[in-house]
Amino acid sequence: MPGRVTHERLMREALHLAEENVQDGGGPFGAVVAKDGDLLARGANRVTPAADPTAHAEIVAIRRACQALDDFSLDGCALYASCEPCPMCLGAVYWARLDALYYAATQDDAARAGFDDAFIYDELATPPTERQLRTEHMMAEKGKRPFETWRAHEGRVEY
Amino acid sequence: MPGRVTHERLMREALHLAEENVQDGGGPFGAVVAKDGDLLARGANRVTPAADPTAHAEIVAIRRACQALDDFSLDGCALYASCEPCPMCLGAVYWARLDALYYAATQDDAARAGFDDAFIYDELATPPTERQLRTEHMMAEKGKRPFETWRAHEGRVEY
Repeated sequence: MPGRVTHERLMREALHLAEENVQDGGGPFGAVVAKDGDLLARGANRVTPAADPTAHAEIVAIRRACQALDDFSLDGCALYASCEPCPMCLGAVYWARLDALYYAATQDDAARAGFDDAFIYDELATPPTERQLRTEHMMAEKGKRPFETWRAHEGRVEY
Repeated sequence: MPGRVTHERLMREALHLAEENVQDGGGPFGAVVAKDGDLLARGANRVTPAADPTAHAEIVAIRRACQALDDFSLDGCALYASCEPCPMCLGAVYWARLDALYYAATQDDAARAGFDDAFIYDELATPPTERQLRTEHMMAEKGKRPFETWRAHEGRVEY
């Protein structure tokens, strides 16, 4: 297991990426993915310059780490994020099967800087049709068919 | 506002993408983004073939719609997803500022096909240090600095 010095070195890199990214036209967020204490991939928030609302630092770092390993699983890896992840990024952490998450700034720090994801956390905890987001469940029976096709498909790669 | 016939046509396209994607080596999920009833972008789940855990159908469709509009905001657009979005994709729906979400299959349908995101929803609703994911808050003071740099940066693009 990586020790305290390694954790701090990796977090300092995530924070450096966040600082540098502000000057580079992006948001104040950075992240790195590491395996056994070795840096695998870096990411910074490129939402506005890349016109991509999913280009949060954590998502960028996770995608690059997966490219580096040519694997959709980051089992055995850790994510170091300059700030506590939003629900989108935290969801990605689970889908990527990361072993551990380290973060420095909190949701409250981010909210004070104008990045408030408390609303999103609240919405996710609300039943779909009661959310502020207009949401409609439709074609419920036809919706099951892709799963039937999936279960019948012998070449499927489960994950 | 698009009427019922338009909603069903767009959802049928999302379901067609999901079915087709199974034969094409991906997962049984499809999504489209539309504006005023016109299709803007398509997406299908490419997690295993692209080795990208974030390549869910909704994320792929959102990124492509943003590229098509050259805008990080999909204000005025709607997402049609073959299945109720996972927390990662639902977070992306909010960040993309989509106006509406339509879905066909439910979380329960997905779980029966082996795609269980209830665990992720539960984890997100749990305080960070009590989650099953190993999580550590560190370097709290240094973590605030990127936000100070951001607030002092006159050229910042807020979103």
